[in-house]
Amino acid sequence: MEFPQPVTAKWIAELIEADIIGDSAREATGINELHKVKSGDIVFVDHPKYYDNCLKSAATFVIINDNTVTKPEDKVLLYCDKPFDAYLKIVQHFRPFTAASSMIDPSAVIGKDTIISPGVFIGKDVVIGEGCIIYPNTTISDYTRIGNHVIIQSGTVIGSDAFYYNTRKTEPVWYRKMQSCGAVIIEDYVEIGANCTIDRGVTDATRIGQGTKMDNLVHVGHDTEIGKNCLFAAQVGIAGATKIEDGVTLWGQVGVSKTLTIGENATVLAQSGVPSSLKGGKTYFGYPAEEAGYKRRELVWVKRIPELWKKVFQED
Amino acid sequence: MEFPQPVTAKWIAELIEADIIGDSAREATGINELHKVKSGDIVFVDHPKYYDNCLKSAATFVIINDNTVTKPEDKVLLYCDKPFDAYLKIVQHFRPFTAASSMIDPSAVIGKDTIISPGVFIGKDVVIGEGCIIYPNTTISDYTRIGNHVIIQSGTVIGSDAFYYNTRKTEPVWYRKMQSCGAVIIEDYVEIGANCTIDRGVTDATRIGQGTKMDNLVHVGHDTEIGKNCLFAAQVGIAGATKIEDGVTLWGQVGVSKTLTIGENATVLAQSGVPSSLKGGKTYFGYPAEEAGYKRRELVWVKRIPELWKKVFQED
Amino acid sequence: MEFPQPVTAKWIAELIEADIIGDSAREATGINELHKVKSGDIVFVDHPKYYDNCLKSAATFVIINDNTVTKPEDKVLLYCDKPFDAYLKIVQHFRPFTAASSMIDPSAVIGKDTIISPGVFIGKDVVIGEGCIIYPNTTISDYTRIGNHVIIQSGTVIGSDAFYYNTRKTEPVWYRKMQSCGAVIIEDYVEIGANCTIDRGVTDATRIGQGTKMDNLVHVGHDTEIGKNCLFAAQVGIAGATKIEDGVTLWGQVGVSKTLTIGENATVLAQSGVPSSLKGGKTYFGYPAEEAGYKRRELVWVKRIPELWKKVFQED
Repeated sequence: MEFPQPVTAKWIAELIEADIIGDSAREATGINELHKVKSGDIVFVDHPKYYDNCLKSAATFVIINDNTVTKPEDKVLLYCDKPFDAYLKIVQHFRPFTAASSMIDPSAVIGKDTIISPGVFIGKDVVIGEGCIIYPNTTISDYTRIGNHVIIQSGTVIGSDAFYYNTRKTEPVWYRKMQSCGAVIIEDYVEIGANCTIDRGVTDATRIGQGTKMDNLVHVGHDTEIGKNCLFAAQVGIAGATKIEDGVTLWGQVGVSKTLTIGENATVLAQSGVPSSLKGGKTYFGYPAEEAGYKRRELVWVKRIPELWKKVFQED
Repeated sequence: MEFPQPVTAKWIAELIEADIIGDSAREATGINELHKVKSGDIVFVDHPKYYDNCLKSAATFVIINDNTVTKPEDKVLLYCDKPFDAYLKIVQHFRPFTAASSMIDPSAVIGKDTIISPGVFIGKDVVIGEGCIIYPNTTISDYTRIGNHVIIQSGTVIGSDAFYYNTRKTEPVWYRKMQSCGAVIIEDYVEIGANCTIDRGVTDATRIGQGTKMDNLVHVGHDTEIGKNCLFAAQVGIAGATKIEDGVTLWGQVGVSKTLTIGENATVLAQSGVPSSLKGGKTYFGYPAEEAGYKRRELVWVKRIPELWKKVFQED
Repeated sequence: MEFPQPVTAKWIAELIEADIIGDSAREATGINELHKVKSGDIVFVDHPKYYDNCLKSAATFVIINDNTVTKPEDKVLLYCDKPFDAYLKIVQHFRPFTAASSMIDPSAVIGKDTIISPGVFIGKDVVIGEGCIIYPNTTISDYTRIGNHVIIQSGTVIGSDAFYYNTRKTEPVWYRKMQSCGAVIIEDYVEIGANCTIDRGVTDATRIGQGTKMDNLVHVGHDTEIGKNCLFAAQVGIAGATKIEDGVTLWGQVGVSKTLTIGENATVLAQSGVPSSLKGGKTYFGYPAEEAGYKRRELVWVKRIPELWKKVFQED
């Protein structure tokens, strides 16, 4: 998330009651989680396991619960007891959750020749382009950006919260919600089927590239980036922070794990599971998804086990 | 789709700016895509790969972008540069998309003792029989026909558009939507769970036979025909133009591919995948789904590989 | 379901036109199906296959279509021709289905600082605690109980009917709906994603324990009990009357069958299928789900079949 205008380390430190280690006049331009962080950003870390990743990240400001770590030269540290609460406080300040009071927020910008059907909810700070059709009973959450000639079928939810939690198994409630402050960006000529769910980014954006088409009941996780001209059949599920490059086809009920990449023009056959990155231009199948020709031969090999058995044990 | 009244080849040719090869006075009664075409129908074809199928189909009229093909004796050809655009023009003429202005279109015909809950959207030209319960926040799209004593749980979408595209990978946007003008027909005593999606036919109808029951989050593709007394557990997905005969049971998360047939009284066990037709009266399992007894033995054979290995390589 | 006040066997017998075998003054406190039945309850049975289970169950009253069975000493039998219809009559009496006339029933009790977004449907006799957020276009059905600090994302349906039918294949309509009269109980700090479906209990309750978090498009069947601090990723499906103990993690697209138990702190990896109970504290994978380490080795063994084949058949 970008701040509407830069704020100083001093201002942030006062908001979250932190000690500044470094230049208190330095200006922060936004806040992001580790996967999406860039120069000017604030990032937070509350577990020694991740200290190193955060201190070496592109972030300029690190909210941290250890004031003995060595400050990298080009960074500002913000020391406090509970970095996760500090994160929530900053998000709450810049993107406070407010109750919607109408089905279509008055702030919505809706382009020419776009049809918003009955029963559609549109949150605050939403922009929808021209020539779109938003079918009945869909939900378009806060901060969503939709291009031109986009079609969204009924019952679909754009911008549900990221499934992203801070885990503390010593507490009675193990999982604390990492408040989502990101958005969903949908480019021109995208079509999304009925009863799909597209999660917003935790701090950045979930993106769907131009001309991509999705069938019904498809799930897209937070911060996932989907290229142009992809085709996802019904009930496909894609976890968070994954990258699907241009022209990828996923057939029905395919599952794709988080933080991986599927290369350009790859095809994944129905019901396959993708636990790690796949190179582009090929067809994959099975769990874990492997090249389809190889996997099909494997199915044939399995059918030959009885023959092997007979040969081996008859020779006794 | 049937036209409200027959139209001459001449009338159609003027609408789509085509040349007529054949009898210009001949009357067309409807338009359908290749899977559903019948005598009196118009069909379109824009790729040489499918010319033959269309010219040999039951259609009386073929919109085609090649005026050198040999006209079958009993047919009328409508020659134009862009048959796909011609198709869209005809559909747009007879079933124009119009924005809904209310949650329940005034054209809806709703039977005695039928309950339409709050938050339900009903499009135009919808007929719902007697003694039905339509639960809150469901969407019933244009042209849907629902019989008597049908129950539809909350959040379900009846009549979302077919996931059916015209592909041109040379264009910046590869997939162009094949405008759906078909319907969904639901017979008596059908029950559909919550947050399901039933796509309308592209040009004909998706049908759900009497007494069939579906659990939640089930997807049924366009033009699929489902028999009587079928039972589909949660998260089943069925692709387009498939035929499920009477009395078929599909357990949870089963996936069924397109344009195939599952025979009467077949049972497919949970999470199985069905890539090709299955005979009736048997129980299937796995991917690709095979007879359950055979498949279970296969799982046992796989567990015997280590023993085989030991035997074979110890003998060295 | 508990009755609002106890009723005598005589009163019930008159309602359902049954003969009483036993003490007609004995008081019934509720009605439940076999899985959930307890002392004071009525249960019904209409098939000899289940007579024994019902007669030996904890129920005090058994509605049965055979007056020749031996009455257990501590029970009252209610003899009638059609026990299933008798069940429906009792449920219909105590929990009649009535059409909702507004999006939020006036009987709803909604706690302090709870946000009910636009487009939310709330049925009758619903209680929602404090500090909850119910996102747009969700459906909260009759009798639901929601604790404090619960978040429900858009489009989710709480309390859809159980997928539970009385089967008679000799009738034209094979499956008759077992009318649901149960509820959904959601404890504090639970979060449920977008477009999920949580079925109500048939006669008792579906329960989701404190601090459990679910991603989008998750299905939970009727009467299922989910413990505290569970984590379910997107598109998980859990059938009816199953028990998921505390701290269980189910990754994306996992399917869990009915009436089984997954033990405390078990983890089931993505796309796995669980057909029978799993012990706690371990990680499982595949279909049928087995210990992940074992299953991973099995995948490796399959890849060695060609080598085995070569060795065995080259030796000929």
